[in-house]
Amino acid sequence: MTNETLLVDLGPRSYPIDFGTGLIDSVGQRMKAMGMRGQTAVVTNTIVAPLYLDRVRRSLEGAGFTVFPIVLPDGEVHKNFATLQHIFDHLLQHRMERSTILVALGGGVVGDMTGFAAATFLRGVDFVQIPTTLLAQVDSSVGGKTGINHPLGKNLIGAFYQPKLVTCDLETLKTLPQREFIAGMAEVIKYGLIRDAVFFAFLEKNLDDINALTPAPLLQVLHTCCAIKGEIVTADEHESGLRALLNFGHTFGHAIESLTGYDQWLHGEAVAMGMVMASDLSRRLGWLTGAEYSAITDLLRRTGLPLGIPKLAIDAFQDAFSRDKKVRGGRPRFVLLKGIGQAILTADIPEQSLADLLSSHTATERVQGV
Amino acid sequence: MTNETLLVDLGPRSYPIDFGTGLIDSVGQRMKAMGMRGQTAVVTNTIVAPLYLDRVRRSLEGAGFTVFPIVLPDGEVHKNFATLQHIFDHLLQHRMERSTILVALGGGVVGDMTGFAAATFLRGVDFVQIPTTLLAQVDSSVGGKTGINHPLGKNLIGAFYQPKLVTCDLETLKTLPQREFIAGMAEVIKYGLIRDAVFFAFLEKNLDDINALTPAPLLQVLHTCCAIKGEIVTADEHESGLRALLNFGHTFGHAIESLTGYDQWLHGEAVAMGMVMASDLSRRLGWLTGAEYSAITDLLRRTGLPLGIPKLAIDAFQDAFSRDKKVRGGRPRFVLLKGIGQAILTADIPEQSLADLLSSHTATERVQGV
Repeated sequence: MTNETLLVDLGPRSYPIDFGTGLIDSVGQRMKAMGMRGQTAVVTNTIVAPLYLDRVRRSLEGAGFTVFPIVLPDGEVHKNFATLQHIFDHLLQHRMERSTILVALGGGVVGDMTGFAAATFLRGVDFVQIPTTLLAQVDSSVGGKTGINHPLGKNLIGAFYQPKLVTCDLETLKTLPQREFIAGMAEVIKYGLIRDAVFFAFLEKNLDDINALTPAPLLQVLHTCCAIKGEIVTADEHESGLRALLNFGHTFGHAIESLTGYDQWLHGEAVAMGMVMASDLSRRLGWLTGAEYSAITDLLRRTGLPLGIPKLAIDAFQDAFSRDKKVRGGRPRFVLLKGIGQAILTADIPEQSLADLLSSHTATERVQGV
Repeated sequence: MTNETLLVDLGPRSYPIDFGTGLIDSVGQRMKAMGMRGQTAVVTNTIVAPLYLDRVRRSLEGAGFTVFPIVLPDGEVHKNFATLQHIFDHLLQHRMERSTILVALGGGVVGDMTGFAAATFLRGVDFVQIPTTLLAQVDSSVGGKTGINHPLGKNLIGAFYQPKLVTCDLETLKTLPQREFIAGMAEVIKYGLIRDAVFFAFLEKNLDDINALTPAPLLQVLHTCCAIKGEIVTADEHESGLRALLNFGHTFGHAIESLTGYDQWLHGEAVAMGMVMASDLSRRLGWLTGAEYSAITDLLRRTGLPLGIPKLAIDAFQDAFSRDKKVRGGRPRFVLLKGIGQAILTADIPEQSLADLLSSHTATERVQGV
């Protein structure tokens, strides 16, 4: 298997995503070859640091960079103002300059916070992403969304800020807990659902090999997901329209995460539940057939994703929707499916359909038919 | 006197600056004519709110906008994370959406924080600046620098983010305390010193009329300063080179502010002291004549600016320099003058000259010759 590179085309903010095995040992040389020099601050967490920090540090120092590590506590509950301030305090106490390169080594939480710190430290410094989870590799490291959570909702504070380089090392997925790998597969399946029916069929056929981390299909998964996301981000960097399609399953998913305090479900698990709800709503509106809806829930279930929506009050759901970033003129907007591979953004949903959906999914522990 | 408009040319991020009298009563119509609609959050402070909030609110509501006011405590000491979070809390508790327009009504502190909140709320919403101080009108409302202070230094956290419109109403300067008007004049004089000897001579000649708020010369002052700044920002939006010249007097000035806790000197006053130090260093290096140096200190003194540098330890100064955003490779860089109207950025300063300068200015209460 050879390594591959994908260019995310954003004019002066374009950047490469490298895919391959063992890339964290060459990331320093790669950065040097791209013209980067000087100080780096490697931001990681207590789980990833013992696994990969030394290798990344050796790679960077071997290429002439100085390395200052910042190790954060692990978990979405720490994706907040306090942790962000902790990063700034460290950077300033150690006299990091505007030429400092922030390197995010870890999953989506580390990447989002490091990216936001890079966007706002001294009004912007360069950063490099080394995502070590499937979710971060296919989703959060592509597209420049950075940010932190607010007690009232996820990712409500942040910036659009592009990395200079993303390094996706397949090897890091070997140490990823199975639950997290499965959660990442929710976003993988999402790309098929919103944009690419052929890819959805590929996933149905190759699911076992992908779950076994077989390099060739895994590389194809990463490359396809990043290509789809890169294409959408290129067309709509600041989420005025098309990009909102990437939020399929997320309006419901974010509500579930927010209402359960962010610590009960992994992001991908909440998104999987959200995709079931969004698919069900699409079916109720007559846009998806029963067979398509079953194919979606079947693939999610085979992947090992939890599909039982937690019991939550309907008005709590509706309250959470009203805080969603996609709200316009007070009306929540939803990404729904007009078939597998065809997503649309709409606010035009009969209130009764939404109410029926919510009462159906908030009244039972398990999804209808699952 | 007619109103005037200056366009800051930044491609897709271009925006107009309107200058004139009574503009806060028409800002709503102006925004509507530019295509803006919907919700606004007007961020102001306890000093400005009683003076202008009602007029701005009437203007906005008259043009069909809804208005949600956020009134902050006054002062540079509140330009911090806690106040920023307070803004976010208010916006989210009142369900502000991504289409919300933030309106900054006040001086530089309100403008910088509101701009940073706009840059990072829901990853970016539109904002409009209504600067009500001379300093904000000629400086902080032009160029897209937004941010907050950190205990270790000023403006260390922030973003480059452009407003959609800047409305400079000369009328608001009538309620500005004299000390603040004079402090703003330090930045006005700075523009002459770094870029425009003719403007410096205009200031020498018209200082009394400007201080008396005579509309015609005051309008010329505002327009010239914003034109110089706009031209520099257009050439260098993200401060890679040319833009650093705008920091003339600021490396020393920021150190003075930082070392005195931000509450003793107004920003413009600290910049005036910093310009004296930077001019003196330029003279010591043989780049300014004694006559030029005297012309600079004369104009600053006639304006009413305090020129006595506070007694501060030399090593505290040097420590503060090392945290400056212009530091590269550990060496502080200074903006110096090669004549009135000609600034350059240099790190190439003999250590002895800097040491002599600091010991001269930190050992006495008053500047040599003043």
